[in-house]
Amino acid sequence: MPATMVSHDKLTATEAARRIACGNLTSEALVEACLARIAAREPEICAFAALDPSVALQEARACDRGPRLGALHGVPFVAKDVLDTADLPTEYGSPIYSGHRPRADAACVARLRAAGAILLGKTITCEFAGFAPGPTRNPSNLAHTPGGSSSGSAAAVADFMVPVGLGTQTGGSILRPASYCGVIGYKPSFGIVSRAGLKLASDTLDTIGLLSRSIEDIALFADVLASREPVPLEPLAPRRIGLCRTFLWDEALPETRQAVETAAERLSEHVEIRDLVLPATLHDIVATRGTIDDYERARALAYEWHHHRDRLSPHMAATVERGLAIPHARYVDALRSAASARALLPSLFAGFDLVLTPCATGEAPRGLDSTGVSTFQGLWTLLHVPAIGLPTHRGPHGLPVAIQLVAPLYADTRLLRFARWVADRLEAR
Amino acid sequence: MPATMVSHDKLTATEAARRIACGNLTSEALVEACLARIAAREPEICAFAALDPSVALQEARACDRGPRLGALHGVPFVAKDVLDTADLPTEYGSPIYSGHRPRADAACVARLRAAGAILLGKTITCEFAGFAPGPTRNPSNLAHTPGGSSSGSAAAVADFMVPVGLGTQTGGSILRPASYCGVIGYKPSFGIVSRAGLKLASDTLDTIGLLSRSIEDIALFADVLASREPVPLEPLAPRRIGLCRTFLWDEALPETRQAVETAAERLSEHVEIRDLVLPATLHDIVATRGTIDDYERARALAYEWHHHRDRLSPHMAATVERGLAIPHARYVDALRSAASARALLPSLFAGFDLVLTPCATGEAPRGLDSTGVSTFQGLWTLLHVPAIGLPTHRGPHGLPVAIQLVAPLYADTRLLRFARWVADRLEAR
Repeated sequence: MPATMVSHDKLTATEAARRIACGNLTSEALVEACLARIAAREPEICAFAALDPSVALQEARACDRGPRLGALHGVPFVAKDVLDTADLPTEYGSPIYSGHRPRADAACVARLRAAGAILLGKTITCEFAGFAPGPTRNPSNLAHTPGGSSSGSAAAVADFMVPVGLGTQTGGSILRPASYCGVIGYKPSFGIVSRAGLKLASDTLDTIGLLSRSIEDIALFADVLASREPVPLEPLAPRRIGLCRTFLWDEALPETRQAVETAAERLSEHVEIRDLVLPATLHDIVATRGTIDDYERARALAYEWHHHRDRLSPHMAATVERGLAIPHARYVDALRSAASARALLPSLFAGFDLVLTPCATGEAPRGLDSTGVSTFQGLWTLLHVPAIGLPTHRGPHGLPVAIQLVAPLYADTRLLRFARWVADRLEAR
Repeated sequence: MPATMVSHDKLTATEAARRIACGNLTSEALVEACLARIAAREPEICAFAALDPSVALQEARACDRGPRLGALHGVPFVAKDVLDTADLPTEYGSPIYSGHRPRADAACVARLRAAGAILLGKTITCEFAGFAPGPTRNPSNLAHTPGGSSSGSAAAVADFMVPVGLGTQTGGSILRPASYCGVIGYKPSFGIVSRAGLKLASDTLDTIGLLSRSIEDIALFADVLASREPVPLEPLAPRRIGLCRTFLWDEALPETRQAVETAAERLSEHVEIRDLVLPATLHDIVATRGTIDDYERARALAYEWHHHRDRLSPHMAATVERGLAIPHARYVDALRSAASARALLPSLFAGFDLVLTPCATGEAPRGLDSTGVSTFQGLWTLLHVPAIGLPTHRGPHGLPVAIQLVAPLYADTRLLRFARWVADRLEAR
């Protein structure tokens, strides 16, 4: 393989799409470079649940030969293995679905492919997008968890196996692994990316999103997913940023506190920053999210629980039991609390364009037995607002630490433009 | 077959469950009676998309031999063919999914079966729960549409083939066919029945619900679906009923107007009834629902659109094209409008326990080419509130006409108790 090919795996999707469109790069060369990187690194990283190089290469060559399909023509991506695919197995991280081949691609996968993107493979998910980890390791340090449940997408993107991955977030399953692996994680506003073909965990919370090394790539793929016309990402300065340490600040490790404080300090040179204190009525939302997640997950897994209970992990079996024990009335109370919390947001956000808040509690913990805790991410997942994690800092072991930026509901495009502006300000130092 | 068996198909699920629990009826006899009715009537009615008598009988015998599984022990039901089943084909009303066998039961199906219910078969759905009709005929008059998209469940229940059917409603797909066929249709509060294993049409609207000939049966199955402890249904008198003719009153045919007015008049002998006028800000919600439905349906069918476009019906292809033409910004505006409309409900409902409103525009239209219009049902689907249709009246051709009762969000149990009370008052005359 020529040396120039090897570097293609370092390309962003945006740059690769541009080069392919100009005829300066073939999709085949790009996919080969990604496959070469995977071949070299996968034994250590374990990011993939399913990979069929011949299918990916065949699609790449078809792209190279055929007419331009769309904004992602020839660009590879991966999909978390809770998303159905018709030509690759889809096992949801569970032995119950060993060898399962869905009849159709999930809508989000179909949409990316229709825009010309090449599905490179399926990435490891925690069992049913929960907390029971897969075998994936953190590319920054193999002894540390990559986070979860979008473990494989985070690790594959971080390790330059692929520029962009699809993930899902019910608690913190996109932004936490993104932070731990040092990539960007984006959870769109709830509801704007179709969940058809997603193995549901929690109907009220599940959100399909993206992981990438580049904000431009996130914006490009997000535009295609939301069927917006892709436009180049222009940085946008927020008028005022709310610094939201949240009522969970004590749970943040020093590196996360420092990341948020330092970022706020630097950004305050350019824009007004004010403390945003969440009202006491919101202090129960972590518990509320947990109730909804447990209850809905237990109901969504009714078939698996009644027919294959012995093939659930002890962790998932305990989660289902906990969920089944929640009375319907308490669940409905939680749904009401969540709706009330969301109703408070417009007034909370009235004075702010953007909120700066912790992402993960700290750098990736050592060990592969746990994927970390989701509180700081889950809070915003329950609130349905769009969130992006930027890996701007490092922790005491040199592992990545992200800050989280949150915008009002449906202000996804503005959030990504703000993120570009914020990243520029923080990188300039 | 002994004559006594034949009458079992007329039993309600509640009565059948009671008799089975007492040892006065076997599940096998009940299922045989239902199968006999199906054998006699199915050639004319065409309610079933998939039926395997041997599997149903085998399960019934296993119930008769085995320990009591739950509140539905031995009671047969059917499921609309947009709900996945592991042991019966699931074709979503589309040739694209011909012979498709999902790996798992939809969560709602699994839950009912875990409580002892016997899945008798899969019922005809309009293509992907849309508007392109299947072959089902209205048991009240074979020349008339049964309505849709839960056509088969409505017809099977109306024709005494089975006591209870699962349906789904995105616009009016439970309450309209229920009204046309003369059975009770119940759409729960949005979100409380897990949609895992449902072929999604619209993430923001799709709601799994029930069709039955008995309010008690609806309550029994609803309790199991929502994992509430089933309790006997006690009638409850509302304190005050809102009579909501809606801004669509001109679209109601004389029989529907008369049904609503007559019901109001009779109920006013027992309870205070006041006009509930929807504010002008709500007048766009029918269009809002249509925008959300079209946009999300087009996105949910991304795989089918890109790979099997020629096997979509012209009607569905036109729906997808219409949906794809909706810009993302207009969709988001529709989501915002829907949320604002929902936010108005608590104040609207402040003075009322219950709302009485039209269900379908009139009796089932003649012909099988259209399943009717969904405006009066879709309005409340968008608002996410629980609704029940009671077939209390008859139209000019002697076909059933329902009234619709609507309660505040999550007041599902009260709604069913109110419905029992209302039905008692109307039947007493």
